[in-house]
Amino acid sequence: MINVTVWNEFVHEKIRDDVKAVYPDGIHTVLADGLSKEGFACRTATLDQPEHGLTESVLNSTDVMLWWGHTAHELVDDDIAEAVARRVNEGMGLIVLHSGHFSKPFKQLMGTSCDLKWRVADEQEILWCVNPTHPIAQGVNPSITLDKEEMYGEFFDIPAPDELVYLSNFEGGEVFRSGCTYRRGHGKVFYFRPGHETYPTYYNQDIMHIISNAVRWAYPAINTRPEFGRTEPTRALGSKVMV
Amino acid sequence: MINVTVWNEFVHEKIRDDVKAVYPDGIHTVLADGLSKEGFACRTATLDQPEHGLTESVLNSTDVMLWWGHTAHELVDDDIAEAVARRVNEGMGLIVLHSGHFSKPFKQLMGTSCDLKWRVADEQEILWCVNPTHPIAQGVNPSITLDKEEMYGEFFDIPAPDELVYLSNFEGGEVFRSGCTYRRGHGKVFYFRPGHETYPTYYNQDIMHIISNAVRWAYPAINTRPEFGRTEPTRALGSKVMV
Amino acid sequence: MINVTVWNEFVHEKIRDDVKAVYPDGIHTVLADGLSKEGFACRTATLDQPEHGLTESVLNSTDVMLWWGHTAHELVDDDIAEAVARRVNEGMGLIVLHSGHFSKPFKQLMGTSCDLKWRVADEQEILWCVNPTHPIAQGVNPSITLDKEEMYGEFFDIPAPDELVYLSNFEGGEVFRSGCTYRRGHGKVFYFRPGHETYPTYYNQDIMHIISNAVRWAYPAINTRPEFGRTEPTRALGSKVMV
Amino acid sequence: MINVTVWNEFVHEKIRDDVKAVYPDGIHTVLADGLSKEGFACRTATLDQPEHGLTESVLNSTDVMLWWGHTAHELVDDDIAEAVARRVNEGMGLIVLHSGHFSKPFKQLMGTSCDLKWRVADEQEILWCVNPTHPIAQGVNPSITLDKEEMYGEFFDIPAPDELVYLSNFEGGEVFRSGCTYRRGHGKVFYFRPGHETYPTYYNQDIMHIISNAVRWAYPAINTRPEFGRTEPTRALGSKVMV
Repeated sequence: MINVTVWNEFVHEKIRDDVKAVYPDGIHTVLADGLSKEGFACRTATLDQPEHGLTESVLNSTDVMLWWGHTAHELVDDDIAEAVARRVNEGMGLIVLHSGHFSKPFKQLMGTSCDLKWRVADEQEILWCVNPTHPIAQGVNPSITLDKEEMYGEFFDIPAPDELVYLSNFEGGEVFRSGCTYRRGHGKVFYFRPGHETYPTYYNQDIMHIISNAVRWAYPAINTRPEFGRTEPTRALGSKVMV
Repeated sequence: MINVTVWNEFVHEKIRDDVKAVYPDGIHTVLADGLSKEGFACRTATLDQPEHGLTESVLNSTDVMLWWGHTAHELVDDDIAEAVARRVNEGMGLIVLHSGHFSKPFKQLMGTSCDLKWRVADEQEILWCVNPTHPIAQGVNPSITLDKEEMYGEFFDIPAPDELVYLSNFEGGEVFRSGCTYRRGHGKVFYFRPGHETYPTYYNQDIMHIISNAVRWAYPAINTRPEFGRTEPTRALGSKVMV
Repeated sequence: MINVTVWNEFVHEKIRDDVKAVYPDGIHTVLADGLSKEGFACRTATLDQPEHGLTESVLNSTDVMLWWGHTAHELVDDDIAEAVARRVNEGMGLIVLHSGHFSKPFKQLMGTSCDLKWRVADEQEILWCVNPTHPIAQGVNPSITLDKEEMYGEFFDIPAPDELVYLSNFEGGEVFRSGCTYRRGHGKVFYFRPGHETYPTYYNQDIMHIISNAVRWAYPAINTRPEFGRTEPTRALGSKVMV
Repeated sequence: MINVTVWNEFVHEKIRDDVKAVYPDGIHTVLADGLSKEGFACRTATLDQPEHGLTESVLNSTDVMLWWGHTAHELVDDDIAEAVARRVNEGMGLIVLHSGHFSKPFKQLMGTSCDLKWRVADEQEILWCVNPTHPIAQGVNPSITLDKEEMYGEFFDIPAPDELVYLSNFEGGEVFRSGCTYRRGHGKVFYFRPGHETYPTYYNQDIMHIISNAVRWAYPAINTRPEFGRTEPTRALGSKVMV
């Protein structure tokens, strides 16, 4: 059983009617419902909870976390953002969705500005798989069409991904590296672009299929952690003396 | 003319006789002397100077920075470490040497613990080039033998390098990814392992040849910076309205 | 059930007493025995069989192939080598062992000379994991010591691996990229260095654990194959006419 | 002075009026003229010449080769295609243009089918730089619009590029990895998508700027070639005896 925690800032859904109309109980609820059907044990956590719902106990019992944030990145406590990034380094999987590109944990794990171009114009996005044998792409058609989405455009200021899985084409002419994998410490990170708050993207079966695949892919490796620090020679060093 | 700033914490050389014997005027002086012979305009900066010698004016006029630190990483001011990492993202080259793997700017740019194994036992290190056409390896023999060095061993907790240029073999049986390149924002980063403070590594011609090549490689690209933020369609969107 | 075909040229074992002493029934038998214990359905095939044991029917029913060859690379029929490489592109996994670096299928899939340095001197090899969360490294200690192995040294003339999983340290001072992954078409390739014919390397539990992990990793993805060739627009092109 | 050889199959331009109208003296002539203005020493070579114009003497005196082919890939002699791929491995740069994705030398260097989707419909292509500090992108705007081009769409069956420099957006909804770098042996390869024979793409200043940058980037490294084969220990092996 994979333990998933879906984190959502849950701000737009409470104050904007156009968002409430799409996600009346919050984006996190739709994500958690979709993932529960795949057999994952899902919890949700939101900004307004104590410690944003990300207590040490929650973090330590989470295998894979999803992160959706947009308007309130700066309200996330520095210590909690750092705890999330540290847990990724310790092995927790992290799936960063859409405007989460500017979240504190993602920026800390990337070391870059994570900036990009954007536009909201009800325009069509088509996602194309460029890595068809990747576990994250299994069982999904080679392309996915979303009739209306926010545009995100290159240059996307991220480190070159370890693996590039999806690219997006936007009607207005832009492209975007929409599905990117990274390993950080003992954890895996997947950035996945779609999911503007005014569009029903997370009700799309293909999008949820990809996120489900990503949860399985990001599940922590079972391997023994390597040791760090001062170490004895693996091969005899003769008469040499360690200082 | 490439403007190089060599930063050194300059602590060991003032308080330990064994280090003073090797680098009486500080590691930074030997590095700056070696690079000056290659025609670079070199300055030095140290921890004990105001703002660690890294004022805004120095940062803004630096093309490539070298960073050596070991015992005093925590004494580097957070704001200055952040300014260095930000300047890298804006285009400044950064060459992180040896124990600089644990420096604040490098850890911030990597997003990982940057931890490793180590041992000081006067043991032999042999560096092997695994990317012979890389600019950083030009004019250098396929292998370099250092009779005595500190051992650094895997697992080295860094993101997978964009390019791997050198690997080290240590007498005691370990290996290490010793020459690693990264792009972060508009800047380039090269991590280069050799250079323990008690050994005369930076007097070695081959080592200085590699560092000189790295300075040239890390020189900022001249390209126009891409724009970020809200953007008009590149291709006409018909009747669609931007929100 | 994963269908594995272990291919071995099976020449040394028949004509050299020192090899016969280690692998009396051939290297392929020891490999197949070890993998069968892991629950894979294993067949073997050798050079001296009709079509080298790699008929179309065998190829089409193989999920993952292991390849060991050394002295008889040139005796492998060009058409069969090409059929193997083509099957990899169609999805079959391929695990290339030791001196298989010079085999026809591997060279064809790499596009380089695949040349390297070597020496047989009963020397110690220590393999280090540099990618501890990779599926191929699960359940294996961070390092593996082989008391006696042939040395392979850099520069190893291969394309930069998609992922680097193991590095080797040799007693005589060399290093080697010993565990390398590649994706070619719809298939996955793992090159794994250890396994000189005069040493009992394939009786080592850790080595077989890594090979077993690699078999599971290289199992063909289930994804629909993307289509190629002339295609209709995914988004309406207005009045434009396809030629 | 960089010696460039522009190879073109030069078939369409002789038999099709629509192509002749755009490139009356052949695509190679326009490419060579454009590159000569940048100060390169340019020669051309075509399919109909003896040895396709690629004699041993021409190959040995070429620093960087451009390759344009489409309808006559199969008419290229196997030995000559192999000599080109071998020269790349020895250090020659190779810039493969547009339909050259299916050329014998490129397929041999990649090890995959190099297949893709395509459509000719006078549609708009917009190229976006995703690696703004790469030498190949210097001095070029972040995006380039070509009013009419052939569409090439993913999945493009190539190995994951060492570096991804350009992505294309097509009006009909597809995306493509349009600027890809690879190192093979001691040579560098750049695949660059634009350049259908019925459109004036190679008269475009930005496109030629990118190709010129690529020529400079692909210029052979000066480094000593590493040695291969049987080798003495780099570190003394004690009493061990080499076999």
